Amino acid sequence: MARHTFEPARYFNSIGSHSTALTIAPGDTVATTTVDGRGFDAQDNQVTQSGNPVTGPFYIEGAEPGDTLVVSFDKLRPSRRRGWSFKMVWPTAVEPEYVRHLPWPDESDRLATWEVDAEAGTVELVRPSDTSLGALVLPTAPMVGCLGVAPIREQVISTRTCSNHGGNMDYRGFCEGATIYLPVFVAGALFHLGDGHAWQGQGEIMGTGIEISLDVEFTVNLRKGKGICWPRGENNGYIFTVGNARPLDQATQHATTEMLRWIQEDFELDPAGAHLLLGHCAEYELANIYNPSFTMVCKLPKSRIARSQRDGP
Amino acid sequence: MARHTFEPARYFNSIGSHSTALTIAPGDTVATTTVDGRGFDAQDNQVTQSGNPVTGPFYIEGAEPGDTLVVSFDKLRPSRRRGWSFKMVWPTAVEPEYVRHLPWPDESDRLATWEVDAEAGTVELVRPSDTSLGALVLPTAPMVGCLGVAPIREQVISTRTCSNHGGNMDYRGFCEGATIYLPVFVAGALFHLGDGHAWQGQGEIMGTGIEISLDVEFTVNLRKGKGICWPRGENNGYIFTVGNARPLDQATQHATTEMLRWIQEDFELDPAGAHLLLGHCAEYELANIYNPSFTMVCKLPKSRIARSQRDGP
Amino acid sequence: MARHTFEPARYFNSIGSHSTALTIAPGDTVATTTVDGRGFDAQDNQVTQSGNPVTGPFYIEGAEPGDTLVVSFDKLRPSRRRGWSFKMVWPTAVEPEYVRHLPWPDESDRLATWEVDAEAGTVELVRPSDTSLGALVLPTAPMVGCLGVAPIREQVISTRTCSNHGGNMDYRGFCEGATIYLPVFVAGALFHLGDGHAWQGQGEIMGTGIEISLDVEFTVNLRKGKGICWPRGENNGYIFTVGNARPLDQATQHATTEMLRWIQEDFELDPAGAHLLLGHCAEYELANIYNPSFTMVCKLPKSRIARSQRDGP
Amino acid sequence: MARHTFEPARYFNSIGSHSTALTIAPGDTVATTTVDGRGFDAQDNQVTQSGNPVTGPFYIEGAEPGDTLVVSFDKLRPSRRRGWSFKMVWPTAVEPEYVRHLPWPDESDRLATWEVDAEAGTVELVRPSDTSLGALVLPTAPMVGCLGVAPIREQVISTRTCSNHGGNMDYRGFCEGATIYLPVFVAGALFHLGDGHAWQGQGEIMGTGIEISLDVEFTVNLRKGKGICWPRGENNGYIFTVGNARPLDQATQHATTEMLRWIQEDFELDPAGAHLLLGHCAEYELANIYNPSFTMVCKLPKSRIARSQRDGP
Repeated sequence: MARHTFEPARYFNSIGSHSTALTIAPGDTVATTTVDGRGFDAQDNQVTQSGNPVTGPFYIEGAEPGDTLVVSFDKLRPSRRRGWSFKMVWPTAVEPEYVRHLPWPDESDRLATWEVDAEAGTVELVRPSDTSLGALVLPTAPMVGCLGVAPIREQVISTRTCSNHGGNMDYRGFCEGATIYLPVFVAGALFHLGDGHAWQGQGEIMGTGIEISLDVEFTVNLRKGKGICWPRGENNGYIFTVGNARPLDQATQHATTEMLRWIQEDFELDPAGAHLLLGHCAEYELANIYNPSFTMVCKLPKSRIARSQRDGP
Repeated sequence: MARHTFEPARYFNSIGSHSTALTIAPGDTVATTTVDGRGFDAQDNQVTQSGNPVTGPFYIEGAEPGDTLVVSFDKLRPSRRRGWSFKMVWPTAVEPEYVRHLPWPDESDRLATWEVDAEAGTVELVRPSDTSLGALVLPTAPMVGCLGVAPIREQVISTRTCSNHGGNMDYRGFCEGATIYLPVFVAGALFHLGDGHAWQGQGEIMGTGIEISLDVEFTVNLRKGKGICWPRGENNGYIFTVGNARPLDQATQHATTEMLRWIQEDFELDPAGAHLLLGHCAEYELANIYNPSFTMVCKLPKSRIARSQRDGP
Repeated sequence: MARHTFEPARYFNSIGSHSTALTIAPGDTVATTTVDGRGFDAQDNQVTQSGNPVTGPFYIEGAEPGDTLVVSFDKLRPSRRRGWSFKMVWPTAVEPEYVRHLPWPDESDRLATWEVDAEAGTVELVRPSDTSLGALVLPTAPMVGCLGVAPIREQVISTRTCSNHGGNMDYRGFCEGATIYLPVFVAGALFHLGDGHAWQGQGEIMGTGIEISLDVEFTVNLRKGKGICWPRGENNGYIFTVGNARPLDQATQHATTEMLRWIQEDFELDPAGAHLLLGHCAEYELANIYNPSFTMVCKLPKSRIARSQRDGP
Repeated sequence: MARHTFEPARYFNSIGSHSTALTIAPGDTVATTTVDGRGFDAQDNQVTQSGNPVTGPFYIEGAEPGDTLVVSFDKLRPSRRRGWSFKMVWPTAVEPEYVRHLPWPDESDRLATWEVDAEAGTVELVRPSDTSLGALVLPTAPMVGCLGVAPIREQVISTRTCSNHGGNMDYRGFCEGATIYLPVFVAGALFHLGDGHAWQGQGEIMGTGIEISLDVEFTVNLRKGKGICWPRGENNGYIFTVGNARPLDQATQHATTEMLRWIQEDFELDPAGAHLLLGHCAEYELANIYNPSFTMVCKLPKSRIARSQRDGP
């Protein structure tokens, strides 16, 4: 149950069997930092190349293929005041015929600037300052856009995209207080994380949230001999499953199927019960419709499961 | 501002230029009833053929192509106690390889039965009674699954599917208190509605909600000379737009594009402001991934628009 | 076995239970004409409104729901010299990010003009005359872009789109010498046809072929009590099935499934044989990736079926 | 212009910056071998693990990011007599509701056996021998299912899937006589190839062709400073471009866009000419609808380009 403080010396723009950054044990907590999606750190200096550089990998002792890695986000905090975002809804999110009507900014002027006030819990649009919006002030809701483990078949996969190993999922639910489950494909699991957002809209339809460097604390655990097919998670209110694919239909199918597996395996539901419960109580959250693989989350309120179980035989 | 009570004498399994059931004027309120998706009425008698039979059409005086029809749902109440649903998550919502593992019920045993208690505000699973779930009690949240106007090009479109005229969208947000905007394609608009649900899960992944007959009161209005491309709506908290298509990506594109149009046309936002606002504040709700066209809803919190406008010049 | 000459007096922009234009019997042949997609006839006069106006409907005596209508195209000939097409590959066929780089022509200058020389069997680009292409001369390959029967559930469906009743499929294989099978959903079947092309590229990626009015001769027959799910056809070399849907994946799924049904029902193949045959001998042809529903055709060489059957027990 | 004979000592189940197997120079020819998709060699011994093991990588001297690698398949020959295939059309190619009606074979009985007679130029179904097909004899048409170069961002990507670096595309056109163009992302390009098929149906709807080990000869060249976005190729009749993605729509979009780029960059076509030519002369070939990314090929007959250019100014 050690507590590690880890200052990254290098970053990766892909997730795979990179050389271990830190070896930790189940139950350990790590305090570390992440740079933003373009490689800028807490001092707003570019310390590595752009493209969702990730911190890690963390080698979890005892993790073996077929296990599940459990990551709890104990703390996620923006580590600087300046955030940035893109400025235009991306073509993947609009009608094909409408793409030419989008307000394509100049290549040199693609970024909006935001001021993050962690104490006030706000992010405020700073530039452009001359839109018809006037002020735009949003709450902070820090999240990790990209997290995952080394993929199957010794693959090394870009942090721009995502699959069953996790990756660039851009889901708002990967926030402080969330516990995330990832399938382990290689010894040590090799957990990576990065691409923090101080806030993000659903669907990440611009292609960014409000991008920021983060101070992160997370705790890892293992479920030995317990495999899963797609990332899962839970928070106070929900259990959830994450599907990453295109089109959104397929992402939805992965998430729904994984939830059917989960509630039948771990919550003692027979097929009849699992289908009636999920069929009537599922909620969905569009995480991103921008990355090479889109992400859809299937959520089930814990209150429904508890009630079902309580009232059960 | 008349109030009409209309008892349907016939129903349609399609939306189009059927002979007018009742002529009403802008500002009028109609109290009427709908049968359930298999044609069963408040007495649980089958009074018309199965397949989402709809009440109407209502001819709105003065409605002309290019206008927008405004429908406010003043009251939506289940009109009987027995509801029904399917029992299995449908293949469109699961991985292709998983379809053969679904618990396909016998054709003669496809329906679950539910007890609706409108006073208690609950719907309870009655049959099957032997699942591992034990009891499953959900709140009532009555909604209209299918509503729309006569389509473009004098089409007559099945109430199983949906498009820009509305139709079988199965969106939980078409509930009491909601105001819905529909494009007018023919004189009189010809509004139809039916397929009530006492409750429905997001995505309607079983292919049904808890199907029920309804008592309905709605009020119509017109926005003359104001056209829209896709159904829109609003409630206390949100404005929303509805895209109907396959794959979900395309449904999402229609909804997002329609929202971009709306906030630029009606809320005095320039493109820069509209994109930053929607890009960071959009929410999405999966309405159905079952019908021939899937439905995705793009929502924008009214609080964000108001704040933006208030703080603006 | 009558031969009818039918001069259309009116046209429809949708397919459904329109009033019968001509009643014919199984075995009868009809010589008639079609206008082009914008309603221009053999004299290049606009005689009806734009939007794929179709000739018909032809009521086939004895056709009942559950039968299959058989239509043989005995003759398809361009009936004038001027054809037209669009000039730009459409956004549905290119990467979303590329849409803004397309050479969007002015709304008033969207059409290219072509000269059809039926005797020489050529179509030649006339205007624009100043492209870097210089001349572009293609062979004539006349086809009917839009053909179908009244849909299920008394629907009336726009001739812009297509579904299991046929419609705007824009498949090059609907040409002289082809025999087409369509499911019958209403008494009389109500066959419509129009939207002739002197030539069309695969995928119809511009949204048009070389649009032309046609002289058509076709012969109808019925397969009583024999239902099909999707349009089918055959020519000298192939049997084929037609799937209409979005995305292309779904269109492909319909076509493939329909072919699996066909070869098991009509060619005495067991599942093992049907799967091995189709799995190794299927060919696919992209008909259109432009219409509201895309069209994919699954083809099976007759030589493979004959050989399989000949060598069989 | 050396000629190398290379006997692979190891294989990879992914494409990336693996240690170089052989360094060659532009103009060089390599004679080598590939094992089949399950790792069986010319003696039908399993020499490496299953899952499309590939031969290579071949380091091409002078290849740098931004170049194009040119690979000509001089010879592709089956190197043994026994081939195998799956036996069932896969769920991705059929309607979701139809999946449960597929003839799922036992896990232990998933493979059909084929006899390849290279001299006679035939492949014949050996087992199962009791289908209603009787004999099924197909011509040999050897092709390489999986070929590619190390991907962007130092990724290592499974040979089960494909992207812009190539990979498991399963296109029948990667056959003897074809020249293939691949974008170079890393120094040396690192060309890999494997997964030979003696024959394959279009769409690879079973998930396999007739899988076989191959004797291969290929010659490499470079186009220095000339980048491409997606794999391209040519043969006697066509130039072609290859899009790899899901859904098929997106694969089609990549292929079409890449062809528009190609004909404008290399064939001196202005946008007006390029669009008219491709819009009317494109052909499409469905390569696979089975792999994690589907593959669609856009083809343009060389005769059309030559004629256009000859007739041009």
